[in-house]
Amino acid sequence: MALVLEQIDSEGLAQLSYLVGDDSAGLAAVIDPRRDVAVYLDKAQKLGVRITAIIETHIHADFVSGAQELQARTGAAIYGGRSEAYQFELNQMQEGDEISLGNATLRALHTPGHTPEHISLLLFDKKQGDEPIAVFTGDTLFNQDVGRPDLLGEDVTRQLANDLYQSLYEKLLPLGDRVELYPGHGAGSACGKSIGDRRQSTLGNERRFSPVFQHHSQADFVQWLLQGMPEPPRHYPVLKKLNAAGAPLKGQPPVIPPLSPQAFRERMEQGDAVVLDTRSILAFGGGHIPGALNIALLPEFPTWVGWMIDREQPILLIVESERDLALAGEHLFRVGYDTIVGYLHKGMTSWQNSALPLESAGEWTVHTLHQHLNDPDLTILDVRGDDERRAGYVPNSRHIYVAHLREHLADLDPHQTIVTYCGSGFRASIAASILQQNSFSRVINVPGSWTAWQAARLPIEKPADS
Amino acid sequence: MALVLEQIDSEGLAQLSYLVGDDSAGLAAVIDPRRDVAVYLDKAQKLGVRITAIIETHIHADFVSGAQELQARTGAAIYGGRSEAYQFELNQMQEGDEISLGNATLRALHTPGHTPEHISLLLFDKKQGDEPIAVFTGDTLFNQDVGRPDLLGEDVTRQLANDLYQSLYEKLLPLGDRVELYPGHGAGSACGKSIGDRRQSTLGNERRFSPVFQHHSQADFVQWLLQGMPEPPRHYPVLKKLNAAGAPLKGQPPVIPPLSPQAFRERMEQGDAVVLDTRSILAFGGGHIPGALNIALLPEFPTWVGWMIDREQPILLIVESERDLALAGEHLFRVGYDTIVGYLHKGMTSWQNSALPLESAGEWTVHTLHQHLNDPDLTILDVRGDDERRAGYVPNSRHIYVAHLREHLADLDPHQTIVTYCGSGFRASIAASILQQNSFSRVINVPGSWTAWQAARLPIEKPADS
Amino acid sequence: MALVLEQIDSEGLAQLSYLVGDDSAGLAAVIDPRRDVAVYLDKAQKLGVRITAIIETHIHADFVSGAQELQARTGAAIYGGRSEAYQFELNQMQEGDEISLGNATLRALHTPGHTPEHISLLLFDKKQGDEPIAVFTGDTLFNQDVGRPDLLGEDVTRQLANDLYQSLYEKLLPLGDRVELYPGHGAGSACGKSIGDRRQSTLGNERRFSPVFQHHSQADFVQWLLQGMPEPPRHYPVLKKLNAAGAPLKGQPPVIPPLSPQAFRERMEQGDAVVLDTRSILAFGGGHIPGALNIALLPEFPTWVGWMIDREQPILLIVESERDLALAGEHLFRVGYDTIVGYLHKGMTSWQNSALPLESAGEWTVHTLHQHLNDPDLTILDVRGDDERRAGYVPNSRHIYVAHLREHLADLDPHQTIVTYCGSGFRASIAASILQQNSFSRVINVPGSWTAWQAARLPIEKPADS
Amino acid sequence: MALVLEQIDSEGLAQLSYLVGDDSAGLAAVIDPRRDVAVYLDKAQKLGVRITAIIETHIHADFVSGAQELQARTGAAIYGGRSEAYQFELNQMQEGDEISLGNATLRALHTPGHTPEHISLLLFDKKQGDEPIAVFTGDTLFNQDVGRPDLLGEDVTRQLANDLYQSLYEKLLPLGDRVELYPGHGAGSACGKSIGDRRQSTLGNERRFSPVFQHHSQADFVQWLLQGMPEPPRHYPVLKKLNAAGAPLKGQPPVIPPLSPQAFRERMEQGDAVVLDTRSILAFGGGHIPGALNIALLPEFPTWVGWMIDREQPILLIVESERDLALAGEHLFRVGYDTIVGYLHKGMTSWQNSALPLESAGEWTVHTLHQHLNDPDLTILDVRGDDERRAGYVPNSRHIYVAHLREHLADLDPHQTIVTYCGSGFRASIAASILQQNSFSRVINVPGSWTAWQAARLPIEKPADS
Repeated sequence: MALVLEQIDSEGLAQLSYLVGDDSAGLAAVIDPRRDVAVYLDKAQKLGVRITAIIETHIHADFVSGAQELQARTGAAIYGGRSEAYQFELNQMQEGDEISLGNATLRALHTPGHTPEHISLLLFDKKQGDEPIAVFTGDTLFNQDVGRPDLLGEDVTRQLANDLYQSLYEKLLPLGDRVELYPGHGAGSACGKSIGDRRQSTLGNERRFSPVFQHHSQADFVQWLLQGMPEPPRHYPVLKKLNAAGAPLKGQPPVIPPLSPQAFRERMEQGDAVVLDTRSILAFGGGHIPGALNIALLPEFPTWVGWMIDREQPILLIVESERDLALAGEHLFRVGYDTIVGYLHKGMTSWQNSALPLESAGEWTVHTLHQHLNDPDLTILDVRGDDERRAGYVPNSRHIYVAHLREHLADLDPHQTIVTYCGSGFRASIAASILQQNSFSRVINVPGSWTAWQAARLPIEKPADS
Repeated sequence: MALVLEQIDSEGLAQLSYLVGDDSAGLAAVIDPRRDVAVYLDKAQKLGVRITAIIETHIHADFVSGAQELQARTGAAIYGGRSEAYQFELNQMQEGDEISLGNATLRALHTPGHTPEHISLLLFDKKQGDEPIAVFTGDTLFNQDVGRPDLLGEDVTRQLANDLYQSLYEKLLPLGDRVELYPGHGAGSACGKSIGDRRQSTLGNERRFSPVFQHHSQADFVQWLLQGMPEPPRHYPVLKKLNAAGAPLKGQPPVIPPLSPQAFRERMEQGDAVVLDTRSILAFGGGHIPGALNIALLPEFPTWVGWMIDREQPILLIVESERDLALAGEHLFRVGYDTIVGYLHKGMTSWQNSALPLESAGEWTVHTLHQHLNDPDLTILDVRGDDERRAGYVPNSRHIYVAHLREHLADLDPHQTIVTYCGSGFRASIAASILQQNSFSRVINVPGSWTAWQAARLPIEKPADS
Repeated sequence: MALVLEQIDSEGLAQLSYLVGDDSAGLAAVIDPRRDVAVYLDKAQKLGVRITAIIETHIHADFVSGAQELQARTGAAIYGGRSEAYQFELNQMQEGDEISLGNATLRALHTPGHTPEHISLLLFDKKQGDEPIAVFTGDTLFNQDVGRPDLLGEDVTRQLANDLYQSLYEKLLPLGDRVELYPGHGAGSACGKSIGDRRQSTLGNERRFSPVFQHHSQADFVQWLLQGMPEPPRHYPVLKKLNAAGAPLKGQPPVIPPLSPQAFRERMEQGDAVVLDTRSILAFGGGHIPGALNIALLPEFPTWVGWMIDREQPILLIVESERDLALAGEHLFRVGYDTIVGYLHKGMTSWQNSALPLESAGEWTVHTLHQHLNDPDLTILDVRGDDERRAGYVPNSRHIYVAHLREHLADLDPHQTIVTYCGSGFRASIAASILQQNSFSRVINVPGSWTAWQAARLPIEKPADS
Repeated sequence: MALVLEQIDSEGLAQLSYLVGDDSAGLAAVIDPRRDVAVYLDKAQKLGVRITAIIETHIHADFVSGAQELQARTGAAIYGGRSEAYQFELNQMQEGDEISLGNATLRALHTPGHTPEHISLLLFDKKQGDEPIAVFTGDTLFNQDVGRPDLLGEDVTRQLANDLYQSLYEKLLPLGDRVELYPGHGAGSACGKSIGDRRQSTLGNERRFSPVFQHHSQADFVQWLLQGMPEPPRHYPVLKKLNAAGAPLKGQPPVIPPLSPQAFRERMEQGDAVVLDTRSILAFGGGHIPGALNIALLPEFPTWVGWMIDREQPILLIVESERDLALAGEHLFRVGYDTIVGYLHKGMTSWQNSALPLESAGEWTVHTLHQHLNDPDLTILDVRGDDERRAGYVPNSRHIYVAHLREHLADLDPHQTIVTYCGSGFRASIAASILQQNSFSRVINVPGSWTAWQAARLPIEKPADS
């Protein structure tokens, strides 16, 4: 007989959705549902609540919304902010509009900034007085960060940054230090520049400790915000369009069938599919199918799949073991890849046993790299983002952001040994696999990369203007 | 790297389906899938096999086939016997037709008897010689019993019984004692008269120990088979028609929402819904919503729901606790009830707390009943089947089979106290609830019923002609 | 790479324990562990943290501490407040003492009141500034309530109440509104008078909305606190002694074996065991084993088992279905019942089928009770606590608190029909079962009880002095 | 209300244990329990049976028996064959001795061969006549194979082989083709030479299809059996001694704590621990901690851990991801490794990020190896068993069984490049890691190894005498 407030964390996307309601009334809403909605239905059944409302704080760019899926299973109404972008039926909420769930009430607060139509939801609990006790801020305010205002194009970025200041200082802070904060993302999401690792907080803790609130003026804030903003992932506009239109109904995640090495290879030979190797960078370095793209099954996986693979391209999947298949499948479903042909049955073991070709990539520690800094046959390739590069780099290294590598291959000398590095080796291995796909024959990755380079206190260069 | 042979037991229906294949080839078939097919997909993924074939041994009458659901999720082909009854696309197998699954092969054997189109499947494993090592017999042969031949109407019953003899003695027994037997049902199913409790056996163990094979001639067998056959459940023809047409696709079991006592009651007052109380007979006796039908959530539940409730009637559900909701929902889904409006939120507790009306039924032990055998104000009502009645009954009792009770209410005196009994109290409580629905005000159930009566060695009467 | 802060809710006891730490450092502490500690080990493994500290905010009275069990599995050190009561080795923390867990730090704050040695733990996260962001208050401060100061005897109650005021106003409130609050209990625990239903809050939300903080002076606060305090459960001093001594190590919850009706009955006949019937009050009313004590398996179960059953008495268990067995077993383990002989195999069904004796109790709605208010053969027995009684009661009812009923049986007339009621029927059914154990032959329970009485707006009497 | 017969498959060991009983009587026995016994307790509770008997078909050599653990949790009696080797209290069964479990009965049949005291258990079910319907054969008879008779030393091997013939032909076959067969192992166990992949069978299917029964005389059988027997794993005598003495009680599998890279490295530097890297051979090849031993977490893992690591040696564990930790822990617990210090927190990622040293090994396809067959600087090392070697090998290869490699290191030239191969690459990677531990600096593994060599139809040499 209590307020229901459950947070669902979709790891990888670091996406936070919420089941909120009142179990004595048997009513609940879901805020920002992900696409595989069974988790909400299961929790709702366990708690004895009926999901009667689905709320989108804004049009998401980083994952496929589960609003349609959840509506199909529950019949609940969908709510969102006010926007002409929406191409499906939903209840557009104005500031002050309420959704009543027994003793709990959710009230819309218009908080533009990350997007123009963005709403936050104030939570009232009749048992705790008549003021809001918590706020669901979507991508307006995170722990230690805010939602980036640059995803809708340069022409509106500055306006949105200014709107965001207003939303933060005029709408959210006045609610009071005591108000609990439930954001739409945690650390790891690309929807913020540098989101903190707490999945919840209070307005007061943020006001006191977050860099977001350490500015003297709106202008200061805007400058701080727009400075050093990393490039937005390439697939964000695509997903935003999909979500505005109403994501296509699938019912549930697809079954991913096993393919024998022979069937897998035949499908490869059709030439249109990408071989997505989700194993760790060391395993990929040790041996992989020639032509495979390595995006390791770490939390960064869904974001980098979005960056590097077209949503329409058929995917042939490699997993370290069948234990990883479900996780890989979930990630791909959430970011909208419905084109998985199958996975390699029994993994690389069956491939090896069939005497099929293997390729390897070198793996150097930072110490080895350090010994070769002046090697003339070597290109040291820094594939990190501009903002990371600016903070310092390995001497003698060149810089091409991994996301742009395919367009800059002609700039590299295929007769050189190319050593790729990034922050940890993860993106460097994506880069290494792209180089190998394009006939670079001597490619070396640096596990640990910049993190290890710093840990080893090796010499660092900085750009002239920094 | 092995033969795959997994049995999936759908309790209640005592229905046995199978995932069969070869995990080195990554291929499998499902034999006689139930409607909630996630279990097959999960097992297939864990084992690393792709489901490429779905086989119906026959047109089922006791549950909704999952063939369509499974095809929708996997793209697998559906196979069955040869019949003009089928109204959807499937591969009709002739005797000898094979499905190849790597080292495993399934070969059709035409075994009419339970139905005319019935096939059994021989299992060959290339690693175990070139003769069949096992047989999936569907409803042709069970442990200690056979599939009843009387479900398609009196005019064909005798013919099917004779066909069955041929299938058993000419097709199955000659395979040899050593052959493993995997039947379509275990004890508890109404598809046989008295199925044994083993979910697998060998042809030799059945030949040696089963009553099925203790007959000197085909005529003997047929006589034994047709004698004392219980009445077939009322819903069997309906489900058979549904399965022949191809069951409607649902994707997954529906969400059952909670209803507040007020909402529940309002829905009741519309008058078209049945209040299905799934609590135990003692709980029902202790207190229930006036007008509720009690079918306790025991293994018999799905069969008796089929008997007593129209597939089209809206259902308002009562469960003892939320822990039972999923099970009740599964059972109803499997026998084709897609009309559940909701369940009473927080169960009878919320009903009681709302000061809503309660009704109770008396509960007598057999000892109390024994003391009242000659009470003139009492009608002792035996609601068991004809075959059970014939084997003996409580003195002075009247007999109306629970399945016919609604049509015989006029034969009973509403001014009498009616004491109902059956085999255990389960059906007697169904009967008691029907009587209470129809304004019989003094109704008593006998927990333990005939089982307890015998255990207590109380006096028994037998019909004159037995 | 984040702060770890997981709340573990032990339903029934409404007891909240916490896993707190830093997963980048791989370190964590558990605050106030329950006795079945697998949940902490599982979570720790999933998160990749090692449990290096176990912290008792105070000596618990309502459950058996899991500190010893967890230490045996992990080798972690145990910490607590300063007290001479402790009879085992632990680190007694003074105010300011810290436990370091990577980026997370826990600092002790002495907050006497519920008990003299009570500590709260301030949580610091190096990533969120250098002030505390949260506080674990144990039984010092709950949502909408505080820990009761009367469990250690009348002579220290007033002192502890005054200490509590100081802890709340001088230690906790000054931390600031923004600080997150993680209490030791939620609604349903008898460690507070009327705990709110939120399992977390902020100091500001409590300061603003909790009755705890609506007092003008320390004297006001103390008066408010001690007024209408319900009687402490009888087993609390026993458990406190056990926990001070160091609870006996069991390793894991015991296996509860099934007993046939015959074995169950034979064990009953030894006379020393209690038959604990955990079914719902309606099921108990419908039929039960003569002599059984009914404590339904609702959240209140563990507390009332503690009240009504001696820790040394052998227990014969009845569950509605095997699905409930694990839950009943957990509850009993957590409150220290290690004397369960077994449970009735297949439940009441097997008992009934064996023709063993059944007893029933009447069940009246409040409407029926209302019609009998003036019946001279009837005793209406209010078994609620003094505080509840004072707020109003059913006219013509007598009052004996269920916890004292066994001592006041002689005050009741066994020739009368006794109708018991409480708040909902739960305790009334405990009372009804005690009356039946003691040869009261006509006993009636009122499902819904006072809640329904009020819902039906039936006439209410109040004590003269209120 | 049925016979209980559940098979529990401990993957890796391919060890099959059984829960057998009668759920109407609520009684069951466990045959050949593994050491982590929660699986039996969970199944027993679900089925509503009490475990009253624990049966050891023989003294196991390949895993630590769970008999003691299960007795500690249930109080059940332990049964076994007759032997003076047993050093703990158990009921030694003579042929014909029975254990009664309601309708089910287990009767001992003395079937020496794998060991002298070995018993099989006949299963009788009162509902299926009065002859046995099934037999649990332990390590006497498997699908397609028998238990090896050579584990107790050369002096008794021939006698046991002859005993085995008698057990098979005089005791088991006469039970009849129809009898179901439940063996103690499936494919993958080293307790047989070449066990088939079926986990159950019938005596008739084995008589008809198994190589075991294709012999004309006892002498023929014995010759066939002893020919080409692979060397028994080194740890088998140790485990046998442990099980005869009664394995030490642990209660439950230990908690494996995470260790930071720094802590891990410091523990390594003490010099007494083994770094056990459970990642795949490609991942190990790609990069590993210098000094690590690679035994990949495949089904072969527990057996090869037994071969290669002393039971007393402290273990520092590396897993691909935390998802693999539980599985690695279970395997180690079952074969008696209670000395795990911890695992590397966040796996190789944290190691890399700390700039700690990495070593790699080369990985060649068989095609690359083929191109280097005559390279003078190369030693091609076949690390398979004698029996495998005899069937053919890579030209120009030398042969040292991986299990003997440590004793033959001096025979190899550390200035050569050593290319190791085995059946699939798994053991070759063990060998490669041992070579690297011993300062061989150029070591190459061949993923796919002999399996791939054959698949590629590359040239094969055979020993002169074969």
